Amino acid sequence: MASQHDAVEVISVKRDRGELSDSQIDWVIEAYTRGDVADEQMSSLAMAILLNGMNRREIARWTAAMIASGERMEFSALSRRTADKHSTGGVGDKITLPLAPLVAACGVAVPQLSGRGLGHTGGTLDKLESIPGWRAALTNEELFAQLESVGAVICAAGDGLAPADKKLYALRDVTGTVEAIALIASSIMSKKIAEGTGALVLDVKVGSGAFMKDLDKARELAETMVALGKDSGVHTVALLTDMSTPLGLTAGNAIEVAESVEVLAGGGPADVVELTLALAREMLAGAGITDVDPADKLADGSAMDHWKSMIRAQGGDPDATLPVAKETHVVNAPATGTLTRLDAMAVGLAAWRLGAGRARKEDPVQAGAGVVWHARPGDPVTQGEPLFTLLTDEPERFDRALASLEGGYDIGNGEFTPQNLIIDRIS
Amino acid sequence: MASQHDAVEVISVKRDRGELSDSQIDWVIEAYTRGDVADEQMSSLAMAILLNGMNRREIARWTAAMIASGERMEFSALSRRTADKHSTGGVGDKITLPLAPLVAACGVAVPQLSGRGLGHTGGTLDKLESIPGWRAALTNEELFAQLESVGAVICAAGDGLAPADKKLYALRDVTGTVEAIALIASSIMSKKIAEGTGALVLDVKVGSGAFMKDLDKARELAETMVALGKDSGVHTVALLTDMSTPLGLTAGNAIEVAESVEVLAGGGPADVVELTLALAREMLAGAGITDVDPADKLADGSAMDHWKSMIRAQGGDPDATLPVAKETHVVNAPATGTLTRLDAMAVGLAAWRLGAGRARKEDPVQAGAGVVWHARPGDPVTQGEPLFTLLTDEPERFDRALASLEGGYDIGNGEFTPQNLIIDRIS
Repeated sequence: MASQHDAVEVISVKRDRGELSDSQIDWVIEAYTRGDVADEQMSSLAMAILLNGMNRREIARWTAAMIASGERMEFSALSRRTADKHSTGGVGDKITLPLAPLVAACGVAVPQLSGRGLGHTGGTLDKLESIPGWRAALTNEELFAQLESVGAVICAAGDGLAPADKKLYALRDVTGTVEAIALIASSIMSKKIAEGTGALVLDVKVGSGAFMKDLDKARELAETMVALGKDSGVHTVALLTDMSTPLGLTAGNAIEVAESVEVLAGGGPADVVELTLALAREMLAGAGITDVDPADKLADGSAMDHWKSMIRAQGGDPDATLPVAKETHVVNAPATGTLTRLDAMAVGLAAWRLGAGRARKEDPVQAGAGVVWHARPGDPVTQGEPLFTLLTDEPERFDRALASLEGGYDIGNGEFTPQNLIIDRIS
Repeated sequence: MASQHDAVEVISVKRDRGELSDSQIDWVIEAYTRGDVADEQMSSLAMAILLNGMNRREIARWTAAMIASGERMEFSALSRRTADKHSTGGVGDKITLPLAPLVAACGVAVPQLSGRGLGHTGGTLDKLESIPGWRAALTNEELFAQLESVGAVICAAGDGLAPADKKLYALRDVTGTVEAIALIASSIMSKKIAEGTGALVLDVKVGSGAFMKDLDKARELAETMVALGKDSGVHTVALLTDMSTPLGLTAGNAIEVAESVEVLAGGGPADVVELTLALAREMLAGAGITDVDPADKLADGSAMDHWKSMIRAQGGDPDATLPVAKETHVVNAPATGTLTRLDAMAVGLAAWRLGAGRARKEDPVQAGAGVVWHARPGDPVTQGEPLFTLLTDEPERFDRALASLEGGYDIGNGEFTPQNLIIDRIS
């Protein structure tokens, strides 16, 4: 049935601003996965999709075809409901670390399957790998057992979920076609739907440190993903959250784990706590639980207990000392006043240049590297007192990291108007 | 200098509707030719160019970079001026065959380097290869010697001319990116400029049997190519000519050679003669010769003498019997009246299905296959008298060829308004 198509025909439809039929979409995803549609044909199609768009029906079918390219997980045999969260990524975004055990402590199972990807800092898996002994790879049996016993798992997504997406994502990365909203939405949602979660909360970041710099585009992405989730029977909500300022006070790997543990201990930066609780409440509501306040689970230590169980279940020692960078460099405040702006992109680039992130998939990340900032926008700063601490194992990295912080913050004497962290909710 | 770029950067500029810099264009063509820019990156860029366009400066630089990817020929040592012609291709378009010896008979050298390509019928080289003994491959030394002695050469373009174009054209063919005017213009002109001709006449076809179905697009292509030629110091003129009706009375290989020989003998279909003379006059004017009327050279036999010398110089026997198809099928006129329409695309598709053209570059063509039509639009036809003769070595091809002729012509009783063959001249 599907072999009635060929690649040039499908490309030409989208090139000429037409609508792809269900049969054309099914065929092109299937043929690309098995290698009958070549990379140079799929990249040409991806550029046509980026420039000419896909409508809701096309995106839904594209997503379904990517899910159909692999296995689909099924958690209905679990004794509790499942909820998951996806963030489009930002600087200092360690929210998954406290969030997963917190939601588990509230009685909902969290199967958080993560990729590695490229970024300012490592991904969630890289951050957790700074904990001695912790391992990201689990079999499906281990995943199920841990979800039943602990209630929270953060592990590497297997190759079996949406293999078409894996292949297509690697292609888009080298062909200038990452920025297609239709393809971003279907990439994220195909994996999350295939993962089998019952409820899903999307944290769609907007601002200088986010993939989406523009509120309208971020909203379009959020609305597209929420519609895709609902159409597939997953209870889906999105929060649009600010990423013009980095989250918390740290961007790196081990230092973000330490900050997450502070939150689990009932402390931590106010913005990290606020976003963690907001996302937890959405996940619980999505799973049908409205009578538990996650703030109580941070206060009574049960979120911390779930964290430790989760780390131990994957071979990690939650009480071990975390790796520390060999070299530090302190940047003092050049003036006294109020920190009125701290640019997420500048901080993220500095962390990346210090070795916290990777440029190529094969690159290692430094566990101890990163940036600590000692004030957040709105806080007072004093000339000559530390404003940033830069961390790396390789001191030759300091110069370029310092360069990326230049112009990345402002100290003023005037008024400061705080920006809302949570900009909107799409459901 | 050029290695400061990378493929995603260059793709992103055009994706985001920006202008490519000279340095970016030089780099991407050079890196693609040597394999450092991958096919999937170039196809994504080609789609972005197709959808977002290039301006005159970008197209000129792109063309120059393709020329710079290979060798450039030089005919200034010849005792006469050079002129060449390029047609964008159409059904029954055998004009190069009588044109090259005719212009040589008028004192201008014609270095016609051709590719093979895909099409309804074979290309010019395939048509000539139906002449027993004739060979398309010449060394550069043979080419120069024949230009000096005979004045006309039709031979295969060497691999050394614009190798970037060769690689890019093959890629565009499988990625739905053939239809980009900027890339069509630079592909044609890079080869023609590298070929070193002093004057160039472009026959840009428009209509059902042409690549360009639409007059505005054909005009844009013609204007773009004329500007590119002039910018490179080549005297360039374009004629926009009708290709809604096929040229002459034959579409095939050997049968088009026979029709060309009729023209050289002073006869032949009026439209073929008209277009041959118009293009010859443009070539002569481009080479600075205005005191010779090419019609005289058809009448006095000197064009035919040059044809025979040209064929003999490349090993062919101009007096040999041409190959004849093993099988024929005659289609009689279904009514009496005036042939009011004969669709070039329908005739071209029929010829292709009879074996005169190829679907893949590796395929052979049948020398004797093709379609002969016994009336042209405006001619009277009589019910039951032959309207088409179909020729092939494989009679199983008749059914599909007949199907493609269905609906491809009209016989009426009313008025018939002839269409101008030469629609416009762009200089």
